[in-house]
Amino acid sequence: MISSHLLVPTESLLLQYGQDSRLCTCSNDQLTLLFSQTYPFDLVELEQLLEAVGWSRRPVRRVRKALTHSLLKVGLWRHDPRVPRLVGFARCTGDGILEATVWDVAVHPLYQGNGLGKQMMTYVLDALGSMGTERVSLFADPEVIHFYQRQGWELEPEGHRCAFWYAS
Amino acid sequence: MISSHLLVPTESLLLQYGQDSRLCTCSNDQLTLLFSQTYPFDLVELEQLLEAVGWSRRPVRRVRKALTHSLLKVGLWRHDPRVPRLVGFARCTGDGILEATVWDVAVHPLYQGNGLGKQMMTYVLDALGSMGTERVSLFADPEVIHFYQRQGWELEPEGHRCAFWYAS
Repeated sequence: MISSHLLVPTESLLLQYGQDSRLCTCSNDQLTLLFSQTYPFDLVELEQLLEAVGWSRRPVRRVRKALTHSLLKVGLWRHDPRVPRLVGFARCTGDGILEATVWDVAVHPLYQGNGLGKQMMTYVLDALGSMGTERVSLFADPEVIHFYQRQGWELEPEGHRCAFWYAS
Repeated sequence: MISSHLLVPTESLLLQYGQDSRLCTCSNDQLTLLFSQTYPFDLVELEQLLEAVGWSRRPVRRVRKALTHSLLKVGLWRHDPRVPRLVGFARCTGDGILEATVWDVAVHPLYQGNGLGKQMMTYVLDALGSMGTERVSLFADPEVIHFYQRQGWELEPEGHRCAFWYAS
């Protein structure tokens, strides 16, 4: 994945976070934040992050399986040489060719309002683009519809509506 | 995949179409129609089917890759001992645990209006259910929104809206 929009970190950071890692800029220049597809998740830390943004807890065993079968998993890390902290996350499912779908986009509340979510989507779309994905879709919560529209996402093109079916 | 809703075919049909195949009932009792995840697709025949329902043609090479990376592919076959004909199709992407998304649901126009599409969705949801999928999503074209609603799909739960991003 070669990002055309986000900065490449230093060699030592690339070693720690993977060659696909990219810097995430932020108003606080004391922080080093990076996107990575490689740095391993602690699933408890991931669920804590998702809980912090208000989502209900899910069994770790099922989350692990879901991540294994995801097309793309992106962590946003607050750099520390020993113990990086997970401050953002997104994942995609899909075939990676005709379709990909974005799920579980989260930035920790303490880090919101800094443009991190926008950079996260840039990273995700770059990664999907480099796979050759034609179309990316997502289901936007009411409070983030404008966030996505401002970034060039088309809301309900051709009158598409989304429908969900829940296992009983 | 054990369907609780669709009939199991005879042993000889199970041999031809796979143990996961199920019968699809139809008003014309001269026809034997079956759903199968196993019977192999001819990609040209698949694209002809999708064209017949009005979708634009896609490069066969990309379709092949997309199918390879799909979670579930279902063909609806008009039985013939030697040359079964593909009369319907659906596929899903997803992690199969937390999420799955249905794409490319098609029934050939000559076979529409027989409840085949509804049985197709029953087959798809049974198969996803047996994987343990919690939630299934899809993007409904305006003309099929009621089709899905009648089958118990929830339209835009919690105010979700769908958004698409297209590779430039």
